[in-house]
Amino acid sequence: MAKAPVLTPQAEDFPRWYQDLINKAELADNGPVRGTMVIRPYGYGLWERMQQDMDRRIKETGTQNAYFPLLIPQSYLTREAEHVEGFAPELAVVTHGGGKELEEPVVIRPTSETIINEYFSKWIQSHRDLPLLINQWANVVRWEMRPRLFLRTSEFLWQEGHTAHATYEDARDFAANIHRNVYEAFMRDVLAIDVVPGRKTAKERFAGAINTLTLEAMMGDGKALQMGTSHELGQNFAKAFNTTYLSRESRQELVWQTSWGSTTRMIGALVMSHGDDNGLRVPPRLAHIQVVVMAIKGDEAVVAKVREIGDRLAAAGLRVHIDDRTDTPFGRRAVDWELKGVPVRVEIGPRDLENGTAMVARRIAGGKSPVRIEELEALLPKALEEDQELLLTQSRERRESRTSDVATPAEAAEVAVGGGWARIPWADLGPQGEAKLGEQSVSVRCLVAEDGSVPVADDAPGTVAIVARSY
Amino acid sequence: MAKAPVLTPQAEDFPRWYQDLINKAELADNGPVRGTMVIRPYGYGLWERMQQDMDRRIKETGTQNAYFPLLIPQSYLTREAEHVEGFAPELAVVTHGGGKELEEPVVIRPTSETIINEYFSKWIQSHRDLPLLINQWANVVRWEMRPRLFLRTSEFLWQEGHTAHATYEDARDFAANIHRNVYEAFMRDVLAIDVVPGRKTAKERFAGAINTLTLEAMMGDGKALQMGTSHELGQNFAKAFNTTYLSRESRQELVWQTSWGSTTRMIGALVMSHGDDNGLRVPPRLAHIQVVVMAIKGDEAVVAKVREIGDRLAAAGLRVHIDDRTDTPFGRRAVDWELKGVPVRVEIGPRDLENGTAMVARRIAGGKSPVRIEELEALLPKALEEDQELLLTQSRERRESRTSDVATPAEAAEVAVGGGWARIPWADLGPQGEAKLGEQSVSVRCLVAEDGSVPVADDAPGTVAIVARSY
Repeated sequence: MAKAPVLTPQAEDFPRWYQDLINKAELADNGPVRGTMVIRPYGYGLWERMQQDMDRRIKETGTQNAYFPLLIPQSYLTREAEHVEGFAPELAVVTHGGGKELEEPVVIRPTSETIINEYFSKWIQSHRDLPLLINQWANVVRWEMRPRLFLRTSEFLWQEGHTAHATYEDARDFAANIHRNVYEAFMRDVLAIDVVPGRKTAKERFAGAINTLTLEAMMGDGKALQMGTSHELGQNFAKAFNTTYLSRESRQELVWQTSWGSTTRMIGALVMSHGDDNGLRVPPRLAHIQVVVMAIKGDEAVVAKVREIGDRLAAAGLRVHIDDRTDTPFGRRAVDWELKGVPVRVEIGPRDLENGTAMVARRIAGGKSPVRIEELEALLPKALEEDQELLLTQSRERRESRTSDVATPAEAAEVAVGGGWARIPWADLGPQGEAKLGEQSVSVRCLVAEDGSVPVADDAPGTVAIVARSY
Repeated sequence: MAKAPVLTPQAEDFPRWYQDLINKAELADNGPVRGTMVIRPYGYGLWERMQQDMDRRIKETGTQNAYFPLLIPQSYLTREAEHVEGFAPELAVVTHGGGKELEEPVVIRPTSETIINEYFSKWIQSHRDLPLLINQWANVVRWEMRPRLFLRTSEFLWQEGHTAHATYEDARDFAANIHRNVYEAFMRDVLAIDVVPGRKTAKERFAGAINTLTLEAMMGDGKALQMGTSHELGQNFAKAFNTTYLSRESRQELVWQTSWGSTTRMIGALVMSHGDDNGLRVPPRLAHIQVVVMAIKGDEAVVAKVREIGDRLAAAGLRVHIDDRTDTPFGRRAVDWELKGVPVRVEIGPRDLENGTAMVARRIAGGKSPVRIEELEALLPKALEEDQELLLTQSRERRESRTSDVATPAEAAEVAVGGGWARIPWADLGPQGEAKLGEQSVSVRCLVAEDGSVPVADDAPGTVAIVARSY
C-alpha cells in the first residue's frame, strides 16, 4: 500500500518540510507574540532529556547551578562597548512596572554576562574564590526579525555558563573543556550529530569575546547550523565591572572569564539532521520514548499483553510508552509515531498473540519483522544501539560527501550556494574574502586545523576555513 | 567556648534574622531591579531538589511538561474580567522590541492561564483529547511593592499546572488530588513542614477561580505562609477563550479547568520553619548535601581519610560533600556549615585518625559525639531519618501550641496580632468579620472541617476559619 505523503517532501521544499514536521509531530507552535514559540509536550520531552544529560556533564566540570534575574538595568549593558553594540538591536525593553513608568528602563536578558559580572565582583575577593564556575538554565529574549521555530525565536531556552579564573590559561582551558568534553561529546554521543569543532573568525565572534569556539553541523539540505558556543571573554567584562581578586602575591588582579551556551535550537538541529520524509528520527540515547508498544485492536487479551510487554521492557531499562488508544485507527497512530520518530514500535494484534510474536518496526534502520515476544528484551537494546550508531554514521557521511576542498574564494562561494560545505585555506580567503562571501549570504562557519584540532589563533599555519550557508 | 552570635537572634528581630540568614548562608542576594533576586548556588541546590521531587510527583498524575512564551499580548489578560483586575497592578509591560515601539504592548507573564487557554482551544477538539494535563517550570514577574527574598519577589520561579477536563467533577477531583497527594505529601514528607490543607474564602481566591485550595504553614514567629495553591477555574477561562470539545453526544461543550502552582517561596518557608539562631536546618530528604565530611587540619593522612570516608558514604547512597579547604580555619568552616544547615558533619583530625573515630555533629537533633569510623555507614542513615521526623514533629508542635480556639472575631484578631493562629467557626466570623480583620492586617488563611478534611463549600456545616497574620 503506497503511503500518502504526510509531509511536504524534503527534496521539494526543505524549509516547508521542516515547518510541516514541527507542526505534525507536535513539537511546537508559533506563539502569539512575533517570533515566540510554544514547546509542546513531545518537543519539551526532548528538551528535558537534553537538559538532564547536559546538566550532569556540566556538573562534572565542577560547575554549580544558580539563577540570576530576568530583568537587567539598561545601563549594565552599555558598560561593555562591543557587547551593547551586538545586542542593542535585539533588546526587549520594559518601560512600565506595577502600573507606573519606570525611572530607568530595564531590558529582558538577551544573555547574562553583565548582570552576572555585577555579582561576581561582589562574591570574588581572593584567589581562594577562584575559579568560580556558575551555570544557569533560563529563558532569554532576543527580538527576532526572521523567526523560525527552534532555530531563531525571540524567546528561547538555554543554559548559559559563566566562569571566572585567576589566569588566562585557566580560562582558556576551561572554555576548551566545555567545547570539546561537554558540548561536542554530548552532541556526538547523545544527539548523534557529527559536529565539527572550530573557532570563529573575528567577524563572527560573540560580542565582547576575545575568542569564540563553536560546533557546526551540516543539516539535511547541506546548510550549516551553529550548535553551541564557548567563549573566552578575556578581561573585557572584568574591566567593565571591576571584577578583581587579591592574588597570592597580595595584588588586585582582574579575573579572566568564559561564557558558553547551548539552546533549544538543538531540537531544530535534531529535526534537520535526522528527519526524513516520514518525520523525525530520534536518537535512542536521547529519546524519552525509545519503544512504543501498540495494541493493534481493542481486544482485551491484546491490551493486557501490550501492558505486560511494556512493563517487562521498562523493567529491562528501556523508556517505554504504551499505546492502547484503540478507538483511534491503528494506521493513523502508526503514522503519528513515525512522525514523532520513536525508534522502535512493537505492534501486537490478536494473531500475534496466537503466534507468541510481535511485529517490530524500526524507524531508524527501517524494516518490520516478527520477533518472538520472549526475545524482545534481548533484541531491542541491541537494535537501539545500532540505530544510535547509524544516525551518527549517516550524519558524518552526509558531511563528508557534501564537503569539497577548494582553492579560491569564488569556488568556495559556489559550493556553499549549491548546498555544500567548502574547505579553503584561511590564508587564501582572509577577512577580505570573508566579507565578500557575505554578499551571497555565505559565511565562514569556523576555522579548523588540518589534524581536526582547533587552531590556537586565526592565523595559525595550516588553518582551514569551512565555508557554507547557514541557519 | 561561647559562640559569638552570627545572626541577629530570632527573638530579637525575626525579619532581620531571616535576612541575615539568607545572606550569610549564601542562599540569595537582592537583584539590581527592585524586588528581583539572585539565587546563589546553595539556595538553588535546594530548589533543584524541590523541582526533581515535585516533578516526579506531578508526572505520576499523568501530567506532561511543556513551555509557553514569557510574553503575552496585553489583550489576552483583559478577556477574563476578574483575572485582569487581580493582575493588572502587578504587570511588567514591554513597549519596545528590536529597537522599535511595539504596535501592541506585551506583558511578561504573571501567570499563564490566558496564553495557555489560547492554545488549549486549538489543541482540544474532542472528548478523546481530555483530560489535557500540562505543567510548566518557568519564571513569572509580578511587580512587588514590598519585596522580601523568596517570599515576595518581583520575579520568581515556579511550576504552574493547567488542566482541562470534560466534567466539573473530574476537574474538581484533579485539583484536590494535586492539593493533597502532590503538594501536601511533598511538603510534609520532604520539606518536613506541617501544612494545613484548606480552602480559601471567596475574598482570598485566585483571580478567575471558582475555588482555591491552599496549604498554610506556621512560621517560626507564628505567622502563616501560603505554601502552594490549587484552583478550580470552572469554565471562566473556557468561556473567555472559547475552549470547547465535541462530546460523546456530539455536542460542543466548554471544558472545566484547574490551575495550580508552587514556587521558590518554599525556600523561604524552609528557612522560617526550620531555621534557628545558628542558621538553617535542612530536612535530610531534601538536602543536596546531607553529610559534610570535614578535614580539621591539612595533614595528608587526614585529607586522604576524609576522601575515603566521603566515597564510602556516597557509595552507601548518602549525598556527601568533602570539605578539605584546610587553608580556611576549621571553626569558620564549621560555623558556615551550621549556617547552611547541613544535617550532619563528620569531622576528622589527626587524633581521630589514631583512635579510628570521627566526631559526628548533628545540626538538627543537636549534639556532637565520637563514632567509630566503620560504624558511620550504618549510623548516619538512621540519624538522618530521625532528623527528618524531628523537624516535622517540631513544626507540628509549634502549630498546635500556638493555635487557640476562640469564640469571637475580636478574640481571633487578638490571637493573630499576638503571633498565633486562631480557630473560629466560620459561621461566627463570615465575610463581614473577615473584612474587619483586615483592618489589623489579619486574614482568614483557610477554611477547614472539624475532621481535618477540606470543606466542600464555604458554608458547609462545621466549617472552621483559621485566622492569622501572614507573609
